[in-house]
Amino acid sequence: MEYSCQTYQLKCNECGRTYGNRPLSGCPECLAPLEIHYDFEAIQKQTPITRQSIQNGPHNIWRYAAMLPIPEGFEPDLPVGFTPLIRAKNLGKRIGASNLYVKNDSVCFPTLSFKDRVVSVALANAQKFGFKTVGCSSTGNLANSVAAQAARLGLDACILVPADLEPAKILNTLVYGARLVRIDGNYDHVNRLCTQIADEYAWGFVNVNLRPYYAEGSKTQGYEIAEQLGWRLPDNVVCPMAGGSLIRKIRKAFNELIALGLVEDKPVRFFGAQATGCSPISQSVRQGWDYIEPQRPNTIARSLAIGNPADGPAASKMIRATGGWAEDVSDVEVVSGMQELAESEGIFTETAGGVTTAVTARLYAQGRISPDETTVVCITGNGLKTTDALVGRFDHLDARAVRPRLSDFADYLRELDGVTENELVAAD
Amino acid sequence: MEYSCQTYQLKCNECGRTYGNRPLSGCPECLAPLEIHYDFEAIQKQTPITRQSIQNGPHNIWRYAAMLPIPEGFEPDLPVGFTPLIRAKNLGKRIGASNLYVKNDSVCFPTLSFKDRVVSVALANAQKFGFKTVGCSSTGNLANSVAAQAARLGLDACILVPADLEPAKILNTLVYGARLVRIDGNYDHVNRLCTQIADEYAWGFVNVNLRPYYAEGSKTQGYEIAEQLGWRLPDNVVCPMAGGSLIRKIRKAFNELIALGLVEDKPVRFFGAQATGCSPISQSVRQGWDYIEPQRPNTIARSLAIGNPADGPAASKMIRATGGWAEDVSDVEVVSGMQELAESEGIFTETAGGVTTAVTARLYAQGRISPDETTVVCITGNGLKTTDALVGRFDHLDARAVRPRLSDFADYLRELDGVTENELVAAD
Repeated sequence: MEYSCQTYQLKCNECGRTYGNRPLSGCPECLAPLEIHYDFEAIQKQTPITRQSIQNGPHNIWRYAAMLPIPEGFEPDLPVGFTPLIRAKNLGKRIGASNLYVKNDSVCFPTLSFKDRVVSVALANAQKFGFKTVGCSSTGNLANSVAAQAARLGLDACILVPADLEPAKILNTLVYGARLVRIDGNYDHVNRLCTQIADEYAWGFVNVNLRPYYAEGSKTQGYEIAEQLGWRLPDNVVCPMAGGSLIRKIRKAFNELIALGLVEDKPVRFFGAQATGCSPISQSVRQGWDYIEPQRPNTIARSLAIGNPADGPAASKMIRATGGWAEDVSDVEVVSGMQELAESEGIFTETAGGVTTAVTARLYAQGRISPDETTVVCITGNGLKTTDALVGRFDHLDARAVRPRLSDFADYLRELDGVTENELVAAD
Repeated sequence: MEYSCQTYQLKCNECGRTYGNRPLSGCPECLAPLEIHYDFEAIQKQTPITRQSIQNGPHNIWRYAAMLPIPEGFEPDLPVGFTPLIRAKNLGKRIGASNLYVKNDSVCFPTLSFKDRVVSVALANAQKFGFKTVGCSSTGNLANSVAAQAARLGLDACILVPADLEPAKILNTLVYGARLVRIDGNYDHVNRLCTQIADEYAWGFVNVNLRPYYAEGSKTQGYEIAEQLGWRLPDNVVCPMAGGSLIRKIRKAFNELIALGLVEDKPVRFFGAQATGCSPISQSVRQGWDYIEPQRPNTIARSLAIGNPADGPAASKMIRATGGWAEDVSDVEVVSGMQELAESEGIFTETAGGVTTAVTARLYAQGRISPDETTVVCITGNGLKTTDALVGRFDHLDARAVRPRLSDFADYLRELDGVTENELVAAD
């Protein structure tokens, strides 16, 4: 269960030991997390990476394959990623931002979240390692993506989730034929169990023993942001935080683009967003800690409900090093954030996106981000997965049905919100 | 409320009268539907349309702007369309097809259905005509798309739906701030009422007074299929039918590509899919009628539940003229079709997609399509909008929660489906 590769391999963050390529997430010597280390000199010698070579690639994350841990001979099967980067003028007007963008992974292929990026890279390696069964611990989006992509690749899937997960996310896992196990506990319990299972069974857990490969998939969001801005970096990135991995990997992506000479070097500040009901990283940033204090999650933003985030300390340090900041918002603000983004930009995001939108608004209000700076807000999942969060907001869901007659309609409309008289003119 | 244009205008299908560009769907003289007529000679003189000119365009439907009724000076605002065309090997194996493709509009931007295509073209014209309020009658997907895109464009939206619409589709309309009116009746009642409202109020109804513009947006699905197949036409297209417009417009798109010399001329057969509980067009095809007999819809495939489809007779004639066929399937088969597609290709589609998948399987089983022919199945919407249809299928939704211990997990797994002994080896 290993393969050799000229251009990348596992390397310990702490002691610097290297481990080739195998399903392993922590250094056996010093227990620190392993990451993928690239030999970009060797890569550039093989086939130089240029803006043009990337643009000649397919319109999905595989255009960046040379910068990802993708085994030789791998044939991309699914057109994952390359989601829209939208100029958010309306939202900008509402919150006082004149140069705001939304990176919209709520329409990522195939399962409508940024997790599709990480899963596709992890499963490319799972296949290479020869795993027949893959799995994950998940707060929902990851479950959906592993189940869907495993089905497509003909792999068995076994997925573990906290028992209180949203019904839409459970259904959207089962439908692909995956085995789903509801665990009586929160994400942190589920994750610990998965670590034990991965040691015991010959299974590839994308976010456990395949984690170093998996995590690299997040870089593609950073590559896309830079390319979609016309090969330049933004001034600020606002990113939701669960395990703390995504925000770090976007920065890693930017740094690689700089090192490869594909974008100009410039400072980028990173801002983290959490829900107050689970805010260990934002607390750490605000307190100036080098560690995080684990929390017991209690928030409707379930996809961010990781109380003991693996990459929390590193994310906290990184954010402060870039001159950024982190904030957390209440569940009421989360729902308002979802509505704010939908009403202004027509983007229906899940609770995590409500968190990010609400935090972004607060960062502008606090003056931490100046109006004219180029700021990218990362929206990572789709609102149809967390409809429960909104149900209470609309009386209208049970509004009375109107008879199909023009006079009844006119009466109802007056009742609803008053139609102005000048609307009542014939159309032509 | 009109504009002039050198390259396209409204024209009556029957009497051939032309009407310039204005919000009008039927010929005032002979009452037949109006369609957009293009002067491709003039278009080619202005800026020749070539494969290269299209490929140089943006990676969305606006790359085809020259072949759409898009007013001069319109600046595309949203990256709609260019959804994945997926080689469906697994589904093909299950149903005996060796050259099967899925056109996957379940991940269309921004609201996860092919309606995003038609709405964006309709609203480009609504703005040009000066409408401040837009609306539609809808079975759900259209409602979502009009609400979202109107929000983004700063237009007011008023949307009418049958009272029994799925909650997810209602919520996914309200969240954008649209006015939503539930009508006590089925789609056909709603649609008739909208026709009256459009006459009475100065509103642009995308599928009523803007219908000729709206309908042209569907052509982009056909353009994309041909381009994604490497600028060639498939042998067969299987397409869901509600109003009967999409299937006709895909054919129109193919014919235009042939006329412009962008693809080789070849026969393409069109196959229509409906749910038995609302199957007026499939009935018409199978009976060999030139008309359709309206039905009272009764099916879980609500987005196809149009009992009196405006383009039904024309679709029926067209299907038979191409040597195609139509079938309808029961609600049980609809749900099986949804699961079939999810389990084999990792694509979670709504009930309408279940209809199309089940009908496709039947067409192969009947021998109406030969295994090696290139066949494209049009999947038009996302499964997260119709989760209700699946809930009964999974006991598992309420499965007991397992304690987060390895031994409990192992017991549960044995209980669930029996783990084979050889899975129980250490990973490395």
